[in-house]
Amino acid sequence: VSIQAPKGTRDFYPETQRIQNFIFEAWKRVCLRYGYEEYEGPIFEDLELFTGKSGDEIVTQLYNFQDKGGRDLALRPEMTPTLARLVNQKGQNLRKPFRWFSIPRLYRYERSQKGRLREFFQLNMDIIGTDSIHAEADLISAIIALLKEFKLEAQDFQVGISSRKLLAAVLSDIGISDSATVLPLLDKRAKMPPEKFEDSLQELGLNSEQINSINEFMKCTHLNQMKTLALSDNAKKALEELEILFEILTESNLEQYIAIDTSVIRGLAYYTGIVFEVFDKNKSMRAIAGGGRYDNLCEKLGGDPVTGVGFGVGDVVLKDLLSEKNLLPLSDLNGPDFYLIDFGENFRTLFAIAAELREQDICCTHDLVPKKIQKQLENAHKSGAKHVLFCGSDRSGSDQYEVKNLQTGVQKTIQRQNIKAYLNEQPE
Amino acid sequence: VSIQAPKGTRDFYPETQRIQNFIFEAWKRVCLRYGYEEYEGPIFEDLELFTGKSGDEIVTQLYNFQDKGGRDLALRPEMTPTLARLVNQKGQNLRKPFRWFSIPRLYRYERSQKGRLREFFQLNMDIIGTDSIHAEADLISAIIALLKEFKLEAQDFQVGISSRKLLAAVLSDIGISDSATVLPLLDKRAKMPPEKFEDSLQELGLNSEQINSINEFMKCTHLNQMKTLALSDNAKKALEELEILFEILTESNLEQYIAIDTSVIRGLAYYTGIVFEVFDKNKSMRAIAGGGRYDNLCEKLGGDPVTGVGFGVGDVVLKDLLSEKNLLPLSDLNGPDFYLIDFGENFRTLFAIAAELREQDICCTHDLVPKKIQKQLENAHKSGAKHVLFCGSDRSGSDQYEVKNLQTGVQKTIQRQNIKAYLNEQPE
Repeated sequence: VSIQAPKGTRDFYPETQRIQNFIFEAWKRVCLRYGYEEYEGPIFEDLELFTGKSGDEIVTQLYNFQDKGGRDLALRPEMTPTLARLVNQKGQNLRKPFRWFSIPRLYRYERSQKGRLREFFQLNMDIIGTDSIHAEADLISAIIALLKEFKLEAQDFQVGISSRKLLAAVLSDIGISDSATVLPLLDKRAKMPPEKFEDSLQELGLNSEQINSINEFMKCTHLNQMKTLALSDNAKKALEELEILFEILTESNLEQYIAIDTSVIRGLAYYTGIVFEVFDKNKSMRAIAGGGRYDNLCEKLGGDPVTGVGFGVGDVVLKDLLSEKNLLPLSDLNGPDFYLIDFGENFRTLFAIAAELREQDICCTHDLVPKKIQKQLENAHKSGAKHVLFCGSDRSGSDQYEVKNLQTGVQKTIQRQNIKAYLNEQPE
Repeated sequence: VSIQAPKGTRDFYPETQRIQNFIFEAWKRVCLRYGYEEYEGPIFEDLELFTGKSGDEIVTQLYNFQDKGGRDLALRPEMTPTLARLVNQKGQNLRKPFRWFSIPRLYRYERSQKGRLREFFQLNMDIIGTDSIHAEADLISAIIALLKEFKLEAQDFQVGISSRKLLAAVLSDIGISDSATVLPLLDKRAKMPPEKFEDSLQELGLNSEQINSINEFMKCTHLNQMKTLALSDNAKKALEELEILFEILTESNLEQYIAIDTSVIRGLAYYTGIVFEVFDKNKSMRAIAGGGRYDNLCEKLGGDPVTGVGFGVGDVVLKDLLSEKNLLPLSDLNGPDFYLIDFGENFRTLFAIAAELREQDICCTHDLVPKKIQKQLENAHKSGAKHVLFCGSDRSGSDQYEVKNLQTGVQKTIQRQNIKAYLNEQPE
């Protein structure tokens, strides 16, 4: 039997799980601070939920299987289809708009490589049921707060923002009404030489005027550059949304974290409005997070037309970035409040003392079999315990214990009933 | 596209997820209080990890499939095989004994019914690497603390304890050296008429003396009754373990939660020593928790011989029991600290104020589009917010805000910089 985890998956020994928890807890803290409510769904869904959203091609990237009842199922590769299903299931009974978050475990059958695994976690935050640009403002503010929560700063990351709606309007204005053929090229533009990009557009039948216009749009890095290109009513409306978004985020003192980034296309995905991606400042890693507005998903999956906007942050790239910036917590001092040390008088008394302490919400542990005091002290240190409590030092029957702070080395004698008070007195 | 979750799985809308979190958080709190460290593993493993432990028959109860690389995988039906794999993977590099816990999501392809779903959560606590009965004491103490953490009392549940080692010794003493044929019958004894039980033993070739001895053992409800039956050295040693276990738990004031229960066999599973199950006091539901000592698992899965003891508590039966006893939390008052109310002057200012509050670790939310004050107040109440903050009431430029406690109805005027102080002053 193999002792390895299946390819593309991870084992989380306690020292690694502590780091996962550090990430999950920060994610959750920020979501709650923003008033988002947590939800979850099954890890597998009917396969058609995913093909219904993304087409049959998605199947090659899924862990899909037939269960013993002949149902076609797939491990979820993303959370949004489940979210749309939940929205469709409750229909009118769900008060909208609402803000929800989830921390799903997700699965993609693809080549595992740096920043990309077959099994990973993702935080998803979504606002469902309003077409107001305020939803985007709320979410982008949250994503910045999320990254700041890990002590990442404006010099570490940037939220690149664009608008699929504006792009579609600009394309339409120059005579390209179906953007589907052009989008994949725009998506790859940043990674190809300019001539190759232009040649490819030409091959699609675009004339040089159209190609120039596209290049002009793609070179925009500021809203006011876009203004000169947004000529039709549709383009102006789309641009106005972007302007309001930047205004709100600027008023919230977040302007140093955001920028117009026309290279953010989000592939061929289902986005219909604002799209955004977060990258480390050097763009040396994969995207840390990405999202945008999707108008048609619920309807496409059989429900009413309900608009949504949301983003996902994966745990893998984020952890790589935090590790690079030395922002992951050290694993010391995560141990219990007390390590109980037995003086060799009545080892089993440790269990009763431990039970009593735990009733007072004190975290404690001890060896499981009698050991020499020196060995127990070693184990106390290894456990990351903050204090040791010498049990059996109450020979006098006076119920007094010796305690020692393992950080400061300070040792003192306290009454049994004062153990909780002793803990509360300790400086952080 | 179906709007239903796949059969045997659950959707967790926020009101349900809150209850899940209530359970998970209590589980985690107690584990940490007992000094257990969290670990996790992949949701799917090589199929042979499970057949290697439980035999090929297990496959009928698994979600198993081939991935696109031809690997035979299965969604984990329990956590212990993964735990054993982790132990085998690190081998000597893992300091033992250790206490670990995990809250895995698990999958069983079986008929879903009350208390049993195809996708569920389970808390697992295990101690690996010591054969001392102290490990069982630690775990059973923890399981009682876990249930007490939910305000369940001695009148609500009982930990039934038995010893497979003692049972095997007693059977061997009466000439039954291979207990494998008898165990399934003993497991079902409580659910069949006495005559049927005896007939079935007779069919297996047992004589009436043997049957009487078995009945005598199975009727034991106290340690001292067992004493008269434990005659061989092996039986005496096994009994002594049980006695020490009861002694320690009694010294820890836990005697009212535990009882000898010979009907606890734990099926044909891999247990080799103490076994235990927790039932609601009327035994009207499925087991709330169960576990025991397993000596051979790591070795069976290709590692060194390492002993372990552990238990699992599922979320489904526990939630049913807590619901029946009215011990699940009400969903009120889980909302943010503040709901910001806009006076219709500059709606977008809400975002800046919210950002400022959140920087101070204050949870807040607000409407996403301008609404009448009355409607915003309604939404504040529905969100479960504790307070409302009327924004735009600082017309004077004096940076004063009206705040209202939604529980007490008390309204007051505070300075913008004192909002955090105001919150801290509020009674719980």
